[in-house]
Amino acid sequence: MAEVHDAVEVIRVKRDGGRLSDSQIDWVLDAYTRGAVADEQMSALAMAILLRGMDADEIARWTAAMIASGERLDLSSVPRPTVDKHSTGGVGDKITLPLAPLVAACGAAVPQLSGRGLGHTGGTLDKLESIPGWRAGLSNAEFLAQLANVGAVVCAAGDELAPADRKLYALRDVTGTVEAIPLIASSIMSKKIAEGSSALVLDVKVGTGAFMKSEADARELARTMVELGSAHGVHTVALLTDMSTPLGRTAGNAVEVEESVEVLAGGGPGDVVELTLSLAREMLAGVGLDAVDPADALADGRAMDAWRAMISAQGGDPDAPLPGARETHVVVAPSSGVLTRLDAYGVGVAAWRLGAGRARKEDPVSAGAGVVWHAGVGDEVTAGHPLLELRTDEPERIERALQALEGAFEVGDAAPERRIVLDAVRPS
Amino acid sequence: MAEVHDAVEVIRVKRDGGRLSDSQIDWVLDAYTRGAVADEQMSALAMAILLRGMDADEIARWTAAMIASGERLDLSSVPRPTVDKHSTGGVGDKITLPLAPLVAACGAAVPQLSGRGLGHTGGTLDKLESIPGWRAGLSNAEFLAQLANVGAVVCAAGDELAPADRKLYALRDVTGTVEAIPLIASSIMSKKIAEGSSALVLDVKVGTGAFMKSEADARELARTMVELGSAHGVHTVALLTDMSTPLGRTAGNAVEVEESVEVLAGGGPGDVVELTLSLAREMLAGVGLDAVDPADALADGRAMDAWRAMISAQGGDPDAPLPGARETHVVVAPSSGVLTRLDAYGVGVAAWRLGAGRARKEDPVSAGAGVVWHAGVGDEVTAGHPLLELRTDEPERIERALQALEGAFEVGDAAPERRIVLDAVRPS
Repeated sequence: MAEVHDAVEVIRVKRDGGRLSDSQIDWVLDAYTRGAVADEQMSALAMAILLRGMDADEIARWTAAMIASGERLDLSSVPRPTVDKHSTGGVGDKITLPLAPLVAACGAAVPQLSGRGLGHTGGTLDKLESIPGWRAGLSNAEFLAQLANVGAVVCAAGDELAPADRKLYALRDVTGTVEAIPLIASSIMSKKIAEGSSALVLDVKVGTGAFMKSEADARELARTMVELGSAHGVHTVALLTDMSTPLGRTAGNAVEVEESVEVLAGGGPGDVVELTLSLAREMLAGVGLDAVDPADALADGRAMDAWRAMISAQGGDPDAPLPGARETHVVVAPSSGVLTRLDAYGVGVAAWRLGAGRARKEDPVSAGAGVVWHAGVGDEVTAGHPLLELRTDEPERIERALQALEGAFEVGDAAPERRIVLDAVRPS
Repeated sequence: MAEVHDAVEVIRVKRDGGRLSDSQIDWVLDAYTRGAVADEQMSALAMAILLRGMDADEIARWTAAMIASGERLDLSSVPRPTVDKHSTGGVGDKITLPLAPLVAACGAAVPQLSGRGLGHTGGTLDKLESIPGWRAGLSNAEFLAQLANVGAVVCAAGDELAPADRKLYALRDVTGTVEAIPLIASSIMSKKIAEGSSALVLDVKVGTGAFMKSEADARELARTMVELGSAHGVHTVALLTDMSTPLGRTAGNAVEVEESVEVLAGGGPGDVVELTLSLAREMLAGVGLDAVDPADALADGRAMDAWRAMISAQGGDPDAPLPGARETHVVVAPSSGVLTRLDAYGVGVAAWRLGAGRARKEDPVSAGAGVVWHAGVGDEVTAGHPLLELRTDEPERIERALQALEGAFEVGDAAPERRIVLDAVRPS
């Protein structure tokens, strides 16, 4: 770093609505990573960025500086085209589980460095850890070998990828500075770009269960991330997808693995299958494998084979029974008719409160806890018949989960048409 | 505290432009003082307050919560009416030095708990510490005894007064969150109200050398503080005074003590005398001593007697020679004419760089360093004759001090009329 700045000077520029220079951005992120800028200074800057914004050039530089704080993986040894997917997080969003082996079965390699859940949205690693023996931590060599041999890896990101983002994300989480599009976009993209894959598909969720409640915000986030990916030579496409209704019929850990296996076996809920195939097609197109139809790989068992290989390679037993929960509480349909609404946020919070998610990042999660719904939006329900099943290891959690579900579903005459993929944002 | 909140919840409310509830304010300041809210959370909140503002009720509650974080002094044993003055800080602002003994000589008691300088504005304690033997630290008993016997005390505030403010001020200083009127007003007033005097006069500075560059901002700060004082039963008046030109003819530590002694001896620069008398009249009026004319006490030596008693009571020798500086650098007038402008900020920064001020609160200051100007605005100057004198112990500091003075003064035909007191803000 050639030029040395002062934290207060940098904070003041953004506080007063100015733009940060390249040199200021490089300095503040490097100094923060080294500990020369204190947490209380960075959180004040993050709040100023949240309230004042950053322009496209600032976001691009901020992202580049976060990538430069660590190393960028070299996937050139992998004898397949590499492509990854990132979801901004939703309820019942187990898509990575069937998607990664499906795309691998179609000839690409999926290097998915994943996170754990925080709040009402689940984490992919938490879900996979409900499989006996499966482990999230891999060495670099293990990661590359599995990527070459199996074509799909879902594992924890190492400390060497975008350490500035790792530190900043933990800080934003406790300082009310998560919800800033420039910071969200740069956080996601710094990790995904550092991961080294040549193409990326983003699943940007919109709706009550998502980070972005409005389509306009989701579109802005998608556009920002697609531009960042393109600027760093990663072919990036974003799908805007609905998250007002939870995906599939399950939200939790083991229950979502079970549902994913159903999809890989050629069955499963229609919305999960539709979104998995839409994302798979974008991923394959991103690396020039347009001619392959992923629906065939689901139907003929190749995706399931890739799943079994992927789980086994990380110590998991794909045939082992998954953990259940000690307690089950059934909510019945209040009247007969059609389920017209099932709110993603309500279901997500209920699953979280049942033990499937964590309030703080050091908390454990329960593998068996979660919510299972017996009818999706548009399905007929009968008064007094089971509608929702709440699973937990701690019965005292049920009451607060039920509170989260109050007003979260409606039975009526006819459900509105449900669209899963709302739009696509492509490089301009 | 009855209700428990969460730091992120409180931050989000303000971040999104909402108002903080009484309970949220009480909780966050108590939890911050106890360490249960972290620095990085409070700095994010401070930035949100700076950018989103607080309404009058929020500011009142915030101030009350800061007072409640410590004790409020009981001055009922002092057999005189108690009145204090606070200045928002300026260049050459030595007014407390002649003012406190002057008001004491007129029959009131002045309990002035003061701070040290930071940045380009000097600190009253730093100035007094240039007097050999004088000490800023007093016990509670010493403080009360001196207040009763001498009528004037200038000393360091103890840890028991508004500890929340002490912690918050240090945080704001390093996080670019000083310049928020609600936070400035509550910081000043929490300390001044906790100090326990029955009346208060605020000297709110406006201009290049002040915190508040515009009269509108200064007026808003003054109005906010006057309302806070009134709400807590302290009779409070604010004067808006000019700080585009430095006060008197000196900026530094020992040099400002010398100038103050000249004023107490019945002489001294006109602007210092005018402002001292204006503030003294407001202070005396605030405690019902309207009939006393402080100009008499300056003229007949009673103010000087009170000064000598005040300095001696704190171990200082009022007759001891003050420390000089090792090096003096003279700047001559560039042309003949009238000094039309002398910029307070430029002079303040020069004095600071010469060693009179500190960059960090743990830095020492030089007693002898500072700037002396031989002509004030409106005075005639002669080309090649001394205009400014720079004093320092470290000759290598002179060059950067000279840089601060570039463009800071002008010689021309006629100076604009200079007003010292711009307006008064009184309780509505």
